[in-house]
Amino acid sequence: MSLTEDQFVAWLEAQRRLDPRRFPVGIGDDMAQIRLTDAASVLITTDMLLEGVHFDLATATLEQVGYKAMAASLSDCAAMATRPLAAVVSVGLPPHLTADQIKQVHAGILRASDRYNCPVVGGDMTCWRSPLPLVINVAMLSEPATSRPVTRNGARVGDAICVTGVLGRSLAGRHLDFEPRVQEAICIAQTVEVHAMMDLSDGLASDLPRICQRSGVGAVIEADGLPVSEQARRSPDPVHSALCDGEDFELLFTLSERDCRRLLKTWSQPVPVTRIGTITGTGKVQIRTADGSIQDLKDRGYDHFSRGSD
Amino acid sequence: MSLTEDQFVAWLEAQRRLDPRRFPVGIGDDMAQIRLTDAASVLITTDMLLEGVHFDLATATLEQVGYKAMAASLSDCAAMATRPLAAVVSVGLPPHLTADQIKQVHAGILRASDRYNCPVVGGDMTCWRSPLPLVINVAMLSEPATSRPVTRNGARVGDAICVTGVLGRSLAGRHLDFEPRVQEAICIAQTVEVHAMMDLSDGLASDLPRICQRSGVGAVIEADGLPVSEQARRSPDPVHSALCDGEDFELLFTLSERDCRRLLKTWSQPVPVTRIGTITGTGKVQIRTADGSIQDLKDRGYDHFSRGSD
Repeated sequence: MSLTEDQFVAWLEAQRRLDPRRFPVGIGDDMAQIRLTDAASVLITTDMLLEGVHFDLATATLEQVGYKAMAASLSDCAAMATRPLAAVVSVGLPPHLTADQIKQVHAGILRASDRYNCPVVGGDMTCWRSPLPLVINVAMLSEPATSRPVTRNGARVGDAICVTGVLGRSLAGRHLDFEPRVQEAICIAQTVEVHAMMDLSDGLASDLPRICQRSGVGAVIEADGLPVSEQARRSPDPVHSALCDGEDFELLFTLSERDCRRLLKTWSQPVPVTRIGTITGTGKVQIRTADGSIQDLKDRGYDHFSRGSD
Repeated sequence: MSLTEDQFVAWLEAQRRLDPRRFPVGIGDDMAQIRLTDAASVLITTDMLLEGVHFDLATATLEQVGYKAMAASLSDCAAMATRPLAAVVSVGLPPHLTADQIKQVHAGILRASDRYNCPVVGGDMTCWRSPLPLVINVAMLSEPATSRPVTRNGARVGDAICVTGVLGRSLAGRHLDFEPRVQEAICIAQTVEVHAMMDLSDGLASDLPRICQRSGVGAVIEADGLPVSEQARRSPDPVHSALCDGEDFELLFTLSERDCRRLLKTWSQPVPVTRIGTITGTGKVQIRTADGSIQDLKDRGYDHFSRGSD
């Protein structure tokens, strides 16, 4: 792509200054926040899934594609520790799709909607005029579950870095039926003070630099401490898979050492939480390998912006 | 298409019942309303524009396409007499687009955003992996400008039917740079009690039946009373153009005879308001032609659902 999404977001942010009283969280985070009254605000996110980029109908069912479209936005709600409210869905349809096939897409949308209590309240459906790929866009609203949504820019030097679940699972097709960490995010943010959080859509090696860049900090990841998935363990380079496999949709967050200890001690949910590193003042995102040496992620060949989507 | 959008919306509505206290306006109107607190609610709409269906880059500039994507959603805000709050934009990009071309699309988005005071607060950008068409989705939030948003289902027998502007203008490429009637809608709804309203995205012959169906009423249009655009006057069948030309994006609304007289008397804005007919109890959508005869629109060959988009 001529312009990466990160470059585009940076350019976009520079175009217009949003009033921070009206828009406490703007462009560049997982969701934007809009204040309506002193007592009420909503957050909004939008995600477009393109056939051939985000899914392949040779390996995914239409029902899975519908589920994934909703789940990507639900994961954005989780990323800010917010509670999903409602979704609207736009679909661009290949002309050959039958009514039954369209309803299969919708069955997947409803599966996610029901599971996460996020009703679909509207939509838009258009048919391509020639055989062209399926496109689904989900825009989702949420409301804060804590005093304010958790953003990407609050990481502090000395913070512990944690993730939920295990990394490198999308290898095994899990990117089609992952479970957005909505309840887990709310529970974490209600238990401790989370300084910064996002969901892992592009992989740790791409996403952690985003938190660091927004927060003006660096980080060191402990390679030994990564919760590597079984699938990734069987890959030629398990650490590489855990760092670079996109679409894990786990939570990545930072909090004080003390809160981290407290969280790990009291955490009793089935989805694990693992400490994977520390926020530093170096401005660099680094990894400490098994032999104790520290290297920049960049120098290890981890491409931060290998994918164009968010 | 195997399923028209109207059929799909009907099917969708039947899938899940929305709680009317939480969602006072749900699927099937121009926007859905979500109540947040007793004092605060938001409305949301989503519109997907596909290259080759909603625009053609042989006749439209990228800047115009960006403007149109925003304007379609702004027109939905107008359709319910609500005030635009914020938008999020998703873009699926052909891989050959340069950074400058992407910025041209965005310039059009910003032109609409600035004119209607509706900031773009977030987005999503993905690139197709092969040469495929441009897709833009805009999801927009608004807030009620009157005690409650004006829906499609409130038309009453005996109501006057009115439109803003003139009809049949998209013939002249106006569908690319139309002006959503946001201020006009709010002004009308604050002046009189509007019973039902929508925007004319598919043409009067397609859209008036939607108000009638939702309200359980019929209608008679006076062919002589239609505000036919200059372009449509020059067409072989001016009335047909005024009835069937999609994407006029004018307001269609109904109100009591008395309020209609009051509105027409006091209306002083540059965009005209014209009375075009009357709501009836017949259940049929009809037209009275110049010779005084009344015919069903359907029998005149006006296809209600000729287009798949909304």
